[in-house]
Formats: sequence, structure tokens, C-alpha cells
Amino acid sequence: MASGSKLWGGRFVGDTDPIMEKFNASIAYDKRMWDADIRGSKAYAKALEKAKLVTAEEKDNILHGMDQIHDEWAKGVFEVKPGDEDIHTANERRLKELIGEPAGKLHTGRSRNDQVVTDMRLWLRDAISILKGNSLQLITTMVERAAVEIDVLFPGYTHMQRAQPIRWSHWILRLIVSSVFAPVELAFDDISINSMDATGQRDFIAEFLFWASLCLTHLSKMAEDLMLYSTKEFSFLTLSDAYSTGSSLMPQKKNADSLELIRSKAGRVFGRCAGFLMTLKGLPSTYNKDLQEDKEAMFDCFDTVHAVLQVTTGVVSTLKVRDINPSVMEAALSPDMLATDLAYYLVRKGVPFRDAHGISGKAVFLAESKSIPLNQLTVEDLRTASPLFSSDVSAVWDYSSSVEQYSAPGGTAKSSVAAQVEYMRTWLKKQVQ
Amino acid sequence: MASGSKLWGGRFVGDTDPIMEKFNASIAYDKRMWDADIRGSKAYAKALEKAKLVTAEEKDNILHGMDQIHDEWAKGVFEVKPGDEDIHTANERRLKELIGEPAGKLHTGRSRNDQVVTDMRLWLRDAISILKGNSLQLITTMVERAAVEIDVLFPGYTHMQRAQPIRWSHWILRLIVSSVFAPVELAFDDISINSMDATGQRDFIAEFLFWASLCLTHLSKMAEDLMLYSTKEFSFLTLSDAYSTGSSLMPQKKNADSLELIRSKAGRVFGRCAGFLMTLKGLPSTYNKDLQEDKEAMFDCFDTVHAVLQVTTGVVSTLKVRDINPSVMEAALSPDMLATDLAYYLVRKGVPFRDAHGISGKAVFLAESKSIPLNQLTVEDLRTASPLFSSDVSAVWDYSSSVEQYSAPGGTAKSSVAAQVEYMRTWLKKQVQ
Amino acid sequence: MASGSKLWGGRFVGDTDPIMEKFNASIAYDKRMWDADIRGSKAYAKALEKAKLVTAEEKDNILHGMDQIHDEWAKGVFEVKPGDEDIHTANERRLKELIGEPAGKLHTGRSRNDQVVTDMRLWLRDAISILKGNSLQLITTMVERAAVEIDVLFPGYTHMQRAQPIRWSHWILRLIVSSVFAPVELAFDDISINSMDATGQRDFIAEFLFWASLCLTHLSKMAEDLMLYSTKEFSFLTLSDAYSTGSSLMPQKKNADSLELIRSKAGRVFGRCAGFLMTLKGLPSTYNKDLQEDKEAMFDCFDTVHAVLQVTTGVVSTLKVRDINPSVMEAALSPDMLATDLAYYLVRKGVPFRDAHGISGKAVFLAESKSIPLNQLTVEDLRTASPLFSSDVSAVWDYSSSVEQYSAPGGTAKSSVAAQVEYMRTWLKKQVQ
Amino acid sequence: MASGSKLWGGRFVGDTDPIMEKFNASIAYDKRMWDADIRGSKAYAKALEKAKLVTAEEKDNILHGMDQIHDEWAKGVFEVKPGDEDIHTANERRLKELIGEPAGKLHTGRSRNDQVVTDMRLWLRDAISILKGNSLQLITTMVERAAVEIDVLFPGYTHMQRAQPIRWSHWILRLIVSSVFAPVELAFDDISINSMDATGQRDFIAEFLFWASLCLTHLSKMAEDLMLYSTKEFSFLTLSDAYSTGSSLMPQKKNADSLELIRSKAGRVFGRCAGFLMTLKGLPSTYNKDLQEDKEAMFDCFDTVHAVLQVTTGVVSTLKVRDINPSVMEAALSPDMLATDLAYYLVRKGVPFRDAHGISGKAVFLAESKSIPLNQLTVEDLRTASPLFSSDVSAVWDYSSSVEQYSAPGGTAKSSVAAQVEYMRTWLKKQVQ
Repeated sequence: MASGSKLWGGRFVGDTDPIMEKFNASIAYDKRMWDADIRGSKAYAKALEKAKLVTAEEKDNILHGMDQIHDEWAKGVFEVKPGDEDIHTANERRLKELIGEPAGKLHTGRSRNDQVVTDMRLWLRDAISILKGNSLQLITTMVERAAVEIDVLFPGYTHMQRAQPIRWSHWILRLIVSSVFAPVELAFDDISINSMDATGQRDFIAEFLFWASLCLTHLSKMAEDLMLYSTKEFSFLTLSDAYSTGSSLMPQKKNADSLELIRSKAGRVFGRCAGFLMTLKGLPSTYNKDLQEDKEAMFDCFDTVHAVLQVTTGVVSTLKVRDINPSVMEAALSPDMLATDLAYYLVRKGVPFRDAHGISGKAVFLAESKSIPLNQLTVEDLRTASPLFSSDVSAVWDYSSSVEQYSAPGGTAKSSVAAQVEYMRTWLKKQVQ
Repeated sequence: MASGSKLWGGRFVGDTDPIMEKFNASIAYDKRMWDADIRGSKAYAKALEKAKLVTAEEKDNILHGMDQIHDEWAKGVFEVKPGDEDIHTANERRLKELIGEPAGKLHTGRSRNDQVVTDMRLWLRDAISILKGNSLQLITTMVERAAVEIDVLFPGYTHMQRAQPIRWSHWILRLIVSSVFAPVELAFDDISINSMDATGQRDFIAEFLFWASLCLTHLSKMAEDLMLYSTKEFSFLTLSDAYSTGSSLMPQKKNADSLELIRSKAGRVFGRCAGFLMTLKGLPSTYNKDLQEDKEAMFDCFDTVHAVLQVTTGVVSTLKVRDINPSVMEAALSPDMLATDLAYYLVRKGVPFRDAHGISGKAVFLAESKSIPLNQLTVEDLRTASPLFSSDVSAVWDYSSSVEQYSAPGGTAKSSVAAQVEYMRTWLKKQVQ
Repeated sequence: MASGSKLWGGRFVGDTDPIMEKFNASIAYDKRMWDADIRGSKAYAKALEKAKLVTAEEKDNILHGMDQIHDEWAKGVFEVKPGDEDIHTANERRLKELIGEPAGKLHTGRSRNDQVVTDMRLWLRDAISILKGNSLQLITTMVERAAVEIDVLFPGYTHMQRAQPIRWSHWILRLIVSSVFAPVELAFDDISINSMDATGQRDFIAEFLFWASLCLTHLSKMAEDLMLYSTKEFSFLTLSDAYSTGSSLMPQKKNADSLELIRSKAGRVFGRCAGFLMTLKGLPSTYNKDLQEDKEAMFDCFDTVHAVLQVTTGVVSTLKVRDINPSVMEAALSPDMLATDLAYYLVRKGVPFRDAHGISGKAVFLAESKSIPLNQLTVEDLRTASPLFSSDVSAVWDYSSSVEQYSAPGGTAKSSVAAQVEYMRTWLKKQVQ
Repeated sequence: MASGSKLWGGRFVGDTDPIMEKFNASIAYDKRMWDADIRGSKAYAKALEKAKLVTAEEKDNILHGMDQIHDEWAKGVFEVKPGDEDIHTANERRLKELIGEPAGKLHTGRSRNDQVVTDMRLWLRDAISILKGNSLQLITTMVERAAVEIDVLFPGYTHMQRAQPIRWSHWILRLIVSSVFAPVELAFDDISINSMDATGQRDFIAEFLFWASLCLTHLSKMAEDLMLYSTKEFSFLTLSDAYSTGSSLMPQKKNADSLELIRSKAGRVFGRCAGFLMTLKGLPSTYNKDLQEDKEAMFDCFDTVHAVLQVTTGVVSTLKVRDINPSVMEAALSPDMLATDLAYYLVRKGVPFRDAHGISGKAVFLAESKSIPLNQLTVEDLRTASPLFSSDVSAVWDYSSSVEQYSAPGGTAKSSVAAQVEYMRTWLKKQVQ
């Protein structure tokens, strides 16, 4: 097509390579910002009137025209035409068709780059608000699940090895604290508008992409835990059929596809962040066309986080703890997980922790040599490791007592977990006000 | 929708979350592989007959049905239906509609994961073939341009500082050698099919993504050079209007948007590579749904490299060297760029290079102090740096001689550059046979 | 070595592979945290006394022993011994040598992972404080330079093409606002300690690495600008010899190595961030040894940002604007950069901006066709583009007026730039209080 | 220090910022290439003699001097002095001290950048040779283990869910094929020297970093499998104490730290690759100081892969399959894993696979409803799903037969696995010749 109809009008006499045209155009994806673009232009028209650069009548014409364009988009009848290289050009072209000359005044003192950044900030502000809603829904689901299943004990793991008994609710609440809570706040605050160097500055995008990456990295870890717990070997949890799929080859299989998809998306989103940072690296300051990479990255990360948060909420709300009371989880507890308690028994009798740890380790070794559980060692057996053991050691072998002893904030005791639930409920109420 | 109509048929009684459905489905993008999927299935049907798992008649039915499906896709009338979660399911569902029961035999001994990998290999093989064509076109353009403009001299730069005089054609040819030549070969060879662990193995994708990243990193560097040369300050080159755009604010501007877009894509493509590697990291072996991230990455990288190579060809074939003979390029040569030649003058008189380098440096400093060009120093001036200078030093101040002295393979002499052009022409001829 | 002397004492009977030993050990780098480790342990000993887990005397012994260890590190005489796999083990081993049994009580209720995280937070808090100091020094240098050179005009660039005249100080101040200001605040606030899931949580590291990446990405862009301005072709700036190097081959060369190093470090630091996120992806929750990757990444990013900020301060404070008054910068201004002003001339006469832009573009084209500067067009020439041009158009051709017309906050007018300088000075004063 | 003593000698009169000096210097890490540098310089001296740029005597002096320097490095007595900014400068400075003036001739026609690239290629060639040795050792260990334990069956997993019975040796061999085999070949071939644009070209580094990333990504996946198999819940394998560590808090724990470290390194190494690509992006062509980032990345990746391959070999050679014959692995097989065989039973009776799959799925569902294993369904039960079932279905319930039916190359039959072992043994023999 001839370049005469483009924004930069009068100067060009050559033609544009059609591949270049397509390469350059962003309308295919940036039309998602049609509403933000209209809102931004309406605000700008009002500012132009205040600065006496358009008359009240012209402003009204612009606003009215913009409302019409809004309707067209909302109804799905807005027609994108050849030459509409981005959403801004499209809306401006349409405005001119609708109201004629005053449309040409809307660009006074505003470069397209200013407009792009304003639109993106407006769009992203709404997008983050949606993600915040998704996060709160996930958190609410988790908190209420933690409240209901507070009595289920199971092994806490470190290094994928059984460590100490904890409450299942403790696992759930720890995930909330470490995963989603703070980041949403951060991203939300960060979107404040800085008036200088608006055109070349994309920190708000880079930070959104990184927040998305960190958020999904946390969810990838949560998904990994849940996948482990759903294996035949752990058998702690059963995923709802709604979040599982079968195998086209093996009829008996039920795969945790939802969790695998959740886990996979951390890579996808971080790839967007990595790509955008690489694109930014070494660019001359102010606007360069390279920055056009910002939009697809932003949209894709929003869509991905949006879907992942919702699917995670669905997974978490529908999965089942197997055979509650007694659960398979509880059956997985074993006396060797109380070896730390055995050490503390000695600490209470005055042994320095480091030495008590060594003695308890010897007891574990002894039980392994005899192929018996740790709590089946006799007091005589234990005394070969330390003379301080006596019959009261039997009180150690109780998972509930073990869990109840950590009653400090953040601990595993029932009162402590319940307090965390209450804290989160209060926090959630504040968020939705 | 009820899950009864899905591939894994008989087992599931619950429903699937619609968001999960969408999250899980890949038909929106993997339908691009419709042709590869049909070719793969036809080959598989023939293999099934050989293994006597289908009859000759059943095989013929399958082949015929597949041909019909091919026609539907080719004409754009194939209808994707709800439940067609990927291209494989869609084609198989349609086959069953067309030929009934024998369609169900096509899956014997073949998991969907096998099928996915086969389709991707077939698709990528064609894709790389297209990219190879694009590369050869770019290389041809560059070689022929180098042949025509072999007499244009300009400054070679290192560290963005003028270094030594070179031929413009030397710059062009160096780019070819360092940028596109080898990688295409590499990627082309690498796509050979390994029969083992086909389902969980995605090295061929990772390697394609990395090849794409490295290829575009090279083109980002080439774009950077061309952008520099197109600035007002360098003024070596004028970009065709077909690959430039104007400013919506500043009427006089002509921006090298095409080059900026080329430069930006290295980040995009590498982001895909980074994201995919991160997704792969720590996965259990064999197939996990996480691998579904492979396809969008593959398609996006192909589309991006495909467009970049074509646009680059367009840019390179249409840009103009400013005011040839004498060009602005040649005017940018200055006597201080012959300081190395001055050192070699002394080396020829027996001075070790390291000392000659120091003496030449002193001459440069002297000229700078006097605010005169290096070649305006008198022999007396030069003798303050070394007594070995005599009147024959004047022969040093000739850019053409300087360039002609490097006549080894890969050098800047006309004969050497011409030999490189010939070498490349021969190589190109071999590629298209 | 026999494993009997390790922390986990009593249980192991086998030996450790020496390569595994080295692979596992972190003392080679985490000894940098010796001071943080001592401070953390002293605080913990006091907490143990409050909880009545050690006596006042034992606490005093521990504190005294720790002070001795502090002295040994400070004097460089602390001896790391085989078996000291990390700084925590080393300090604890030494404490036991110094004070005997009470040393073993220091570990009561504290896992090594708790200790690692506490030490890292303490160390990083100090590190960020140092980086904040470096940033403030850089900002101060830039602000004062902007104050002194406020009268120097030069071309503002977008797309590496001359756009509109701006003040050199405007460029400097824009960099501050877009580069370093906010991030330091962010990183500083973010380091608050969250009491839950301390052991498996590394968001504070990931966020520090990302802040470092974004900070250096900005500096890579600033370096790119300065490199451009230092080329022979731009010749705006001369880098101090203290931040340049020569060539081993070409005696005349002076390379902006410092700027190239600054530019390169964005990649290095982001690589650390990318690597750490990839390591985190898909990990089971709580502590896994994979997290050990956090420390080298943290140290390397600190060291790199620390050096880059200081070198940048040195570069910025010593570079010279070439031939001030009139400067080469000012000589680079050309009448076509006033084409936007020409459009505004028409806007003031009632022409909508979009049309005025088109008319001004025609004037630029006309001047180019005639090979004359834009301001050499006669009023008659201009009238072929629009009848509204009259003799008062001559007032447009003044760079100072052009710059002065943008007097809003963040604008290029002298008053506006001076106000930014004052704003920054006030802000800086507040930071150091 | 005064700059007068630097390579670029005569020109500089200012001083260098000490931080800049350190920032610029690479001797701290590039001294690892001392041997490659000496070999490169000796070869270059011979070339200079051939080109008659040094005399035979001078060449001999240089060679002799270089041999002395070699001895000093080898004995650890080479003294790095202030001003030795890199290994090349250090060796050249020392050569001059040893043999005087002829040392200055060694640099004739060779820029330091040429020298750097040559040294890196020489060093990397050796490094890859070492890594190849490590790989072959790992492969040998795995092949021989596969040979010995060929009779151990266990569940093959996809999606972390039990899929079909396979041989443990099949798992081992699949890892070899998908992990280490091809990449070593690739990296080895790729290091051929390209004579053009040697100074600015770093593809050989980028490709090495990517190979390292892909190699460790594979090992991260292998480590994930082995970690799963080592959990209490799977209990398939016991890691040797030599590759495990205990917990400082919990006496009973035995953590698979070695596997976690192996898994973590994929991130580290890929971070180096990502960082280097980002550094390369958008650089002007030829040499820029940014390229200095290549060396630390190369060294770190070599060291990491070197250690990981050795530790992996140690882990794999010492881990124990629990309670062989019958093993825990075999006990983990369950009749539902034969559901695919049940479908093939119907296929053999003429049912299309897709329908047979559905029928088998119904049988699985029926068994689950009755809470009995799949093989406990009576023929009557099965007939509710399909009338084709008869008493001969009992032959399906045999894990060995199931495994033996896949006797094609790459299959799970004993003959097939044994053939793979033989193939690998032959391949290994060829490698070490």
C-alpha cells in the first residue's frame, strides 16, 4: 500500500514491504487495549480543553465520538482496516471518520509513544486488579481448607525425605505465606505513574513480568508437592477427575495434568521476562522500536497467571485427602521422625543439643541395625547410647504431643495453626473492602 | 462437557473444569501441524498393515479417509469441534466419522505422545527447510552486494572506535561467515530421528530454539552496526523508505524501525529458549504434560526467524551507500587510522613490534598536541619519536595501499575479498542443487 | 575423611567421596558472612537465655567466645580446618574449642537452614546499604554535573535519530529518574524478615538478583548512549584516560573499555537471576540442597553492582563535554529538528495538529529535494505547503526558544531543569540523614 | 599506577582508577589458560620465523623463554605482578625479562584479541576432552550396571504415575541415550577453528555453554527420578552414605544432597549461558570489551560439568537396589499396570484398539468400584465390559510376559535390553581407541 495514508503522512514517497508492514504492525494483539486507549484519549481531550488547545465543543465532539467507538468495540462491530497499524491509529482513524477535523487535534503535544505507555499502564492496572481477585480466591480456598482439616497430621518433608510430623493445614498455610500473599501487594503498588521519561521506561512491565515469574515459580513448587502426594507411592491425595486426564494408551492411568501444566508455566512466564530484559539490554535511551516486544509479553503473562491461579484454585478446592481419620497421611508417620524429640528429651535433662543430637543418632542407628522401629528400643537399648534415658522416655512416642509442642506463632500446634487461619481471615476481609 | 467423548473414554465419570479444558487443549496452535499429522498417520497405517495389525482394505480406507481430511484442511473447511483437544484427536475423530470402525485401529501400539513427537519432527524438518531457503536468499543478496561494491573503503571499527581502513565488502562478508552460514547446517543435520525415548525427549526442540537464538543474536549485532551507520552522525548509509517509518510527532524523522525490530527479536526468541529449558529442568523422565510448552515456542521461533530473515534481506538489498565515489564512508577515513601502518614501517626497519607500537603512539600523541592530522607531522617531528623515520614514510599515508597489504585469505585486499565472493558463490550453488 | 567429625555425627559409618565433599562444601565462599554469622549467633544465645535454655553464665561464655572468633576473622588469623564445610560449622567448631561444652547448646531449636537464612539476611542488609551509598554518590555526581552544564544544548535522540533539541542536563536527569532512584528504595524495603517458612524461602534473594539485573540493564543503556556520544562520529564527549584503554595493535586507539564493561555486566547479573529462578523451579517445598546456589549468586551480583556503580561514578564525573561554548553538541543541532515547532506554528494558527504535522512534513521533503536546510526555505516555498505561513515563521528557527517552550515539570526549559536539580538535591539530603 | 607501563604505552598520560583497573583486569581467572597461552605463542613464533618476521635465533630465544615460563607456572612459582592485567600480558612481560628485545617481536601482526581467542580455543579443546572422558566413565558405569541388573523389573512411570512394567536396566539405558551420548559428540566437533572474524566471534563459547546447559538439564531430570526412587515412599533405592548427608537438627535423616546438587546445577550453568547471550545481544560487530564475560562463564561451566559428571558416576555406581530378588521395585508392580495388555488381548480378538482401550478402562473402573485388584475380576465381571473375554485372559496377568512382548529394538524384552548393552559396549570401545 502507498504510505500516504499513514500517520507520518507527507514525507514518504516509497512503498513498504508487506512483510515489513506485518512485522511492524501490532494491531493483531494491541487491540486488546481498545478500552484503555479510549479512556486515555478521553482524559487527554479534557486536558487539551483545559490548556485551551481545543474548544469545549471540540472536546465534546471528541468525547462523543470516542463513546461511539467504545460501543463498536463492545459490540464486536469495530472494523480494523488496512493501515490501522496499532490500536491507537485505528481509534484515531475511526474518530476522524466519525467527527472529522477535530480528531486531528487530539494528538497535539502527545506522541504515540506517550499514548502507548499510558494505555499499557491503564490496561495493566485493571489486569493486576483481576489477578489480585484470583489470588484472593485461591488464598480463601486454602485458608478455609486449612480450617476444616486442621486435625490431619502428616509427615513434614525436607530434601524430599520425611522430617518431622506436622499438620496438613500447616503445609497449606506455609504455602500461602511463601507464595502469593506479598507479591500481589508489591505488583499493585508498583504501578504508580512516574511523569518523567515515560516513553522509554518499561520498568513497570519488567517488574510485572518478574512478579509473574516469581509467583508461578512458587506455584510450580506447590504443584510439585501435590504431584508427589498424588503418586501411588505417597497416596496422600486424590485429585478430582475434573483436573485429571487419562492416557490414550493405558486405560488404568489417571494423570495429574493440571498440576503438570501449572508447574510448566513458570518456565513460560520467566522466558518472557528473560526475553524482555535481553531486548532492553544495551538499548539507547528514550524510545526504540525494540520496546514493542513489551505488549505480547505482558498479555501472555497476564493470560497465563490468570489461568494458572484459577486452575490452582479448582485443584486445591476439589482434591481429596485419602481416607480421612485415620488418613494415609497419618499412617505415613513413623517413630524415627521423633528422633529430634528424643534429642530434646535429653536436652531437658541437661545435655547440650549437639551432644543430644549425636546420642539420638546412635539410637536411630541401633534401631536400624536391629530392624525395629525406633520406639521399639528398650530402655536398656537406649542406655547404651546414654545413661540418662529412663522409662519416662515412652512419652516421646506420640505424634500429637510432638506437633503440639511448637505453639509459638508459625508453629504446628493446633492453637498456633488456628491463629494463623484467623489472621488470614482478617487479612482477607481487609483486602476485599 | 461430559468426559465420555474423550480419548480415555470409559473411566472418567466426573466433569472437567472449562478453564482446565482450555488450559489443557492445544488445538488452537497445534492445528498448524495438520499436514504433518496426516502424513505421519498415513505412514503409520502402512506400517500397521505390514505388521498385519490392519488388513489391506482397512489400510486403504484409512489412507483414503486421511486424503479427504487433507482436502478439508487445505480448503479451509475442516471443522474443529468441541472435544477436539489437539490436532491428533481432531483428525482421528474426523476419520472415524468418515470411515467408521477401522479408524479405531490406527492407534494400535502408538501413544499420543509418540504421535506428537513424530508430527513435530516432520513439521520442523519442513520449517527448517524454509528457513534454510530464507538464509540462502539473504546470503546471496549480501554476496552479490559485496561483489558490486568491492571498491568502497570505510573505517573498520572495534570498540565502536575507528580502527583500520577496510573494504565495505569485507564487513559484509565477515557478517556472513560469522552469522548465518554454519548454524543453518547445524540445525539441518540435527533433526535426525532417534528411535529411543522418543516421547520424553525434546532435545531437537531445545536445539532448534537455541539455534534460532544464536542466529538472531548475530542479526541483532548486524542491525546494531547498520543502525550506527544510518545515524546522521555516521551518515554512511540510507535505509530505503520501505524499511523505515516516520514519527507521529516529529515530521522530519525517519526511523530505522526495521533494524530495531530485527535487533529486538533476539530477546524474544531467546526468551522462548530460556523458558523451555526452565520448564525441562528437574522434570521426571518420560512424558510429562509440561512438555506441551514445546509447540508454541517452536512455532513462535519459526515465525520470528522466518520474518526476520526476509526483512533483513529486504533491508540489505535496498539500503544505499551514501554518495558513492567519493562516499561518506571513505571521507570518514583519517590518517590516525594508519598508525598501525606507521608501526609496521618501523618493524620493516628492524624495530620489534612492541617498541614500534610505542613509537607510533608517541607520534599520535604529538599530532594530537599540535592539533594536526597524523600525516601532517614532518619527518623532523617524527624523528623526535624515532631516528629511523625518513622521507619514505610518506608512502604510509595511503588508504588503498593499507587495505591492499592484507592479501592473505580472509584479508582486506581486493583479491582476497574477491576470492571470498567466489568461494561463497560456489558454496551457494552447492546448497541449492 | 571419616564422617564422624561432621555435624550429623553418630549415624554415618561410611566415607564421603572427596569430590562430593568439595561439591557439597560452601566454606570457600560463604566465609564472607563470618561477621553476620557471629552477630546472628550472639543474638540467638541471648534468646536462648531468655527461654531458659542456657544459663546466664553459658550465654556469657558463648558471647565471649564469639567475640574472640570475631577478632580472629578480623585479624585474618581464623583457621579454616578440614571438615568445616560452611561458615556456620567453622564458627561452631571453633567455639567448642574455645569454650567447650556450652557451645553445643547454641544449636538448640535452630536448624542450620534457619541459621543460613538469618546470616544471609543480615549480610544482604549491609550489602544493600553499601549499594545505596554507591547509588547516592552516582546520583549526586550526576545532579551536580547537570547543575553546572545546564546551558549546553544538544540533540535529543529517539530511535538513534536526532529528534528535538534538549539540554544536556535534561539527558542526565532523565537517566537518574529512570535508572537508579526507585530501585534502591524498593530493594531496601523488601528485606524485611518474614517469620514463616524461613528455611525454604528465597524470595529476598530472587528479588535482589532481579533488582540488580534491572539496575544494570539501565546502566547498560546509559553506557550505550555514552559510547555513542564518544565515537569519533558524534564527538560530543571525551572519556577520561583513567577510564579508557588503548589497543595492543593500533597505537592511535582509545577505547571506552569502562563503558563496555558496564554494558556487559547486565548480562552477567541477569544470568545469575535466570539461573537461580531455574534452580528454584519445581523444587519441592521447604529446604532442598539446591538452594545452596543462592549464595554465590548473591555475592557475585553484589560485587558486580558495587564495582559498576563506582566505575560509572568515575566515568560520569571525569568525562568532558567537547569544546564547550560552542560545543560540538550544539553544532549537531540542525533546523530539521525544529520541524515539530514548525507544525506547532500552524497549530497556533488553528490547524489541527495532525494536519499541521503533514504540512511540516511536506516542508521537510521540499527542503530535502532542494538540498537546503529547512530554515532556508523561503516563505513562498512554505506557502506551497500551506497558505498560513508568513514572515513571522522566522521566529521558529531558534534552538533556545524551542527548548524554553517546554516549561512544565519534567520539561527542557532552563527553569524546569533547574527545578529538577533542586528537587534531587533535596531528595539526596533526605537520604543521607 | 602510572599507565606508562601498559601495553599501549606511549600515548596515555593520565592515571587509571584502581577500581577500574581491577574491573578491567582478567588475570585473576584467565591465568588458568597459562599453558594454552604458551602453546599458542610458541606456535606463533614459529609462524613468524616462516614469514621471516623473526630470525631463527630469535625464534629459538622465544621458544626457550616460553619453556622457562612454562616451568615457572608448572612449579607454582610464576609471579604475577601489578600491571599484568591478563595472562597474555603476564607471559609477555616475563618473556621480556627473560630474553629481552626479541620478546617485543612476538606481537607482530597479532592483536591481543586474536591471542585471547586462540588461547580459549586451545583451552576449551582440552577441557572438552576431559569432559568426554568423564562422560564415557559415567556411561560405562551405567551400561555395566544395566548388564548386571537386567532381571530387575519395576514400574515405568509417565506423569509420575505408574504406567507399564519395565526393566530397571531399560530405565538406565534410556537415560544414556537421551542424556549424554550425542551432546558430547556435538560439542567435540564444534570446536573447529574458523579463520575469519576470529576476534569478535564467540559462537564456540555460546555453543559450549548451551551444550553444558542441556547436558545438566538431562542430569537434573535423572537426579529427580533417583530422588523419587530414594524417598521412603518409593523405597526402590538406597543411596550410598558417601553421597548422602545428615541433618544438623534431625538425627534420623539421610538426605540425598548429592542428587539435589546435581539437580541444582542445570540452573547455574544455564544462567551462564543466558547471561552470555544477553551480553552478546546488540553488540556492534568485531571486538568489544563486553566479550570478556566469556571466560568466567566458560571456566565455571567446565568446572561444574566436570564435578557433576564425576559425582553422578559415584552416585550411580554406589546406589543399591533395595532387597533384590524380590525387590521393592518388583513389589511395586500392580495388576492395573497391565490394563494396556488387557486391551491388546481384545485387539488380538479383532477389536479396534480405541474400542479395546475403552473396554479395558471399564474393567479398571469396575475393579476400583469393587476395591479389588484388576486381576481379581472374574471372567463374568469382565464380560459385563465385553463378551469377548474368556478364561484365557488369565495369561495376561504376568509381568514378565508383559515386559517380554516388546522385543523390537529399544524395547523392554531381555533380549532387546541385552542388545542395547552390547551396542553401547561396542560404541564405548570405539570412543577410547
